[in-house]
Amino acid sequence: MPDLPRESLKVANVGLEFFSENIETAGGSAIHVDWKPPGDGDADTARALAALINNPIVEAANEVAFDRYHSANPVVDSIGRARDDIPGMDGRTILHAGAPVAWKDMCGPMKGAILGATVYEGWAQTLAEAEKMAENGEITFDSCHHRNAVGPMAGIISPSMPVWKVTNTEHGNIAYCTLNEGLGKVLRFGANSEEVLKRLNWMEKVLAPTLASALDNTGPIELKPLIAQALQMGDEVHNRNAAASSLLLKKLIIGALESDAAQNDIKSMASFIAGNDHFFLNLSMPACKCMLDAAHGVAGSSMVTAMARNGVMFGVRVSGLPDMWFTSPAPVVDGLFFPGYSRDDAAADIGDSAITETAGLGGFAMAASPAIVQFVGGSPADALAQSLAMRHITIGANSQFTLPSLDFAPSAAGIDIRKVVDTGILPTVNTGIAHKQAGVGQIGAGITSAPLDCFLQAVEPLHNSISGNS
Amino acid sequence: MPDLPRESLKVANVGLEFFSENIETAGGSAIHVDWKPPGDGDADTARALAALINNPIVEAANEVAFDRYHSANPVVDSIGRARDDIPGMDGRTILHAGAPVAWKDMCGPMKGAILGATVYEGWAQTLAEAEKMAENGEITFDSCHHRNAVGPMAGIISPSMPVWKVTNTEHGNIAYCTLNEGLGKVLRFGANSEEVLKRLNWMEKVLAPTLASALDNTGPIELKPLIAQALQMGDEVHNRNAAASSLLLKKLIIGALESDAAQNDIKSMASFIAGNDHFFLNLSMPACKCMLDAAHGVAGSSMVTAMARNGVMFGVRVSGLPDMWFTSPAPVVDGLFFPGYSRDDAAADIGDSAITETAGLGGFAMAASPAIVQFVGGSPADALAQSLAMRHITIGANSQFTLPSLDFAPSAAGIDIRKVVDTGILPTVNTGIAHKQAGVGQIGAGITSAPLDCFLQAVEPLHNSISGNS
Repeated sequence: MPDLPRESLKVANVGLEFFSENIETAGGSAIHVDWKPPGDGDADTARALAALINNPIVEAANEVAFDRYHSANPVVDSIGRARDDIPGMDGRTILHAGAPVAWKDMCGPMKGAILGATVYEGWAQTLAEAEKMAENGEITFDSCHHRNAVGPMAGIISPSMPVWKVTNTEHGNIAYCTLNEGLGKVLRFGANSEEVLKRLNWMEKVLAPTLASALDNTGPIELKPLIAQALQMGDEVHNRNAAASSLLLKKLIIGALESDAAQNDIKSMASFIAGNDHFFLNLSMPACKCMLDAAHGVAGSSMVTAMARNGVMFGVRVSGLPDMWFTSPAPVVDGLFFPGYSRDDAAADIGDSAITETAGLGGFAMAASPAIVQFVGGSPADALAQSLAMRHITIGANSQFTLPSLDFAPSAAGIDIRKVVDTGILPTVNTGIAHKQAGVGQIGAGITSAPLDCFLQAVEPLHNSISGNS
Repeated sequence: MPDLPRESLKVANVGLEFFSENIETAGGSAIHVDWKPPGDGDADTARALAALINNPIVEAANEVAFDRYHSANPVVDSIGRARDDIPGMDGRTILHAGAPVAWKDMCGPMKGAILGATVYEGWAQTLAEAEKMAENGEITFDSCHHRNAVGPMAGIISPSMPVWKVTNTEHGNIAYCTLNEGLGKVLRFGANSEEVLKRLNWMEKVLAPTLASALDNTGPIELKPLIAQALQMGDEVHNRNAAASSLLLKKLIIGALESDAAQNDIKSMASFIAGNDHFFLNLSMPACKCMLDAAHGVAGSSMVTAMARNGVMFGVRVSGLPDMWFTSPAPVVDGLFFPGYSRDDAAADIGDSAITETAGLGGFAMAASPAIVQFVGGSPADALAQSLAMRHITIGANSQFTLPSLDFAPSAAGIDIRKVVDTGILPTVNTGIAHKQAGVGQIGAGITSAPLDCFLQAVEPLHNSISGNS
């Protein structure tokens, strides 16, 4: 060390920032590298993580899980009704987005949507009556994800609602989702006025039967080619579905015109879909759920098979731990707000729609969708950066979903909890923003990320699940 | 100079490359800058150019011309018939793409399309009969551009053909274009088989009346907002019109369903448009012609108001020289060929569709359309570079046509012959490629550029046109 004082120091400081601050205070200079030990500094998590990384059991399980996700072939083949198609939807059952949550703990928009659905079902005549029923435990609640279903935002599915039925023809699993209502004052954002319920009735009585007639004539529609095409047309297929909705309408309108549906109903169907660029979202979501459910339950796999938010907690499911949810408080989303609203009005992150990101779309495919930044904020360069960053935390990439601006690179897919915890890079999620109070509706859209804590929690249980074998 | 031999030389050589080659042969090193004097080395052109650059008359004229282009508002308001709507289309008149060209000088695909149109009109029963009529001077030919019209590829318009009527509501000028037939074996690429003529008949008897009924109910459709939206969805609106065609179909289908058109005709209209991603091209072109014709004939303006190819010559029109064409041999296009075909089979560049580039779309807006490279060749990075390069040769940029991948920058527009000649940067043109023989059809698509010579030729006449005033 004798030479040290004679030369000027060149210091790279890794970890705690105040060491480099001290050097600078003393007149020296230091480059600070922002770094934390893997596992957020928790020694048990770090040990479990170390045992999982390069573990041949996990690698083999992930290969199986990713291949099942990648080979899935979701097709929409019919329109059903929740009570007839979704298991256990008889009686007063309402499904919601995210991990299970009790009525008393629900956020404003979810309560608002449930009250609207209760009146829509005719179980109550007024929203006040509906609220009493919910408080008195007269309604059974469950998570969409527990019933082969997904729902955007509040994600409310009640028994009379029509649902898309999407079948994975490769592995046989099925996923359901309601029909998209459009933007603004709609049930899924917590609005429940007469206008909202009237639209739901029209969707049940006119739209759904017309769509069903159309599908009878089109035959099953494969959803992955349609999504792939939309990615070439500026959609990321979560918050931008303008192209996908148009491509779907082209197929449906011809099917409807070949059916015996009334010309007036065909016209109102076409007008509704043509005026709702988000219409395809409710097919994008069950398509993604179909792909990911195929990968769920592979022992030892660290692949994330669902990210879903109930408006209070952000929840994550992992393939190798099929019966568990890993939850952490849902973040409040920053983004672009409609005139008159701000972050202070926003509910926390909500909805099953992060299933699109889990499948390599949405925030993961933002590079395909420079125009999305005018809806969710940021710049086209940010959008490219998000898609590139997701490569660090995924098992593979989806060769069927290519990103033109990245020279047609496949979209990063198959989130690996090990890589999220090891790198600290969090999955990006694009999302709509609901007002925090019941009854208001959408107030904006933005970009957020999954909380690290959900992934941290899963590390030790996954390690325990395979430790008998390792 | 005494110190020269003692130091190693650092040479930058501008212009003739062999000077730098000599230095390298002698063991030295030199950086060569590829440069030519403006005007391609012609002293008279260079002098005229020097007098035009920063000339207040030209600057003021270009401001007027560009403003007329930029403020134009093309709307499609009806479907007409060439003989009823286009001036002087009675009798045996056929319009073609590009500058005027005599039958004997026409290329194979243009001849093939004319023969097909002659049989379609019933003037002849066979293609052989039709050929005799053309040779005997029994058919009058003229350029589409002389009759307020544009046509893609061969650009054939015969009297019975239905035409879109596009009106510039800001300045009152009108532009016509036929309906798009789809890709492959179609008249505009020189094919003329029974299948081609049968389709033309169906377009006249079924498609056009159904579209007309639809337009009666939609009312006039503004084309610039539709183009602007398509640019956000991966179209460059010349060789990629997938989004624009879908957006148009959404409007037309609702108009048709509100009309008393037969449901079967509505269905065949919807199927045809849904299956033809190039359908919007024949509206994009007259929309661009409407914008540019508004800027044509401004004395002293160096703005290009048309680029058009007749399959033999590439032609350019300049605002300040309204009655002239500046032509130069059309290049053979390199690109992506359909299986079984190569550059050896290709006709030279053909079609009025370069009107889209003249208006700041197509090759000028390629940055909006990374997916286009899978049709015309190159990489998404090349597409960005093309849009950026066009900024060097244009008067302004179109704030209504924004390019998402360039952070929503407006598309470069208003080609200035002075800047083309001064920089040597040539306008980029995306284009389909026809087989050089009559009757075959499309064999590929690619990227080319306008020949410098067209712009060089225009410099002295423009200078002469204002020299009385300068």
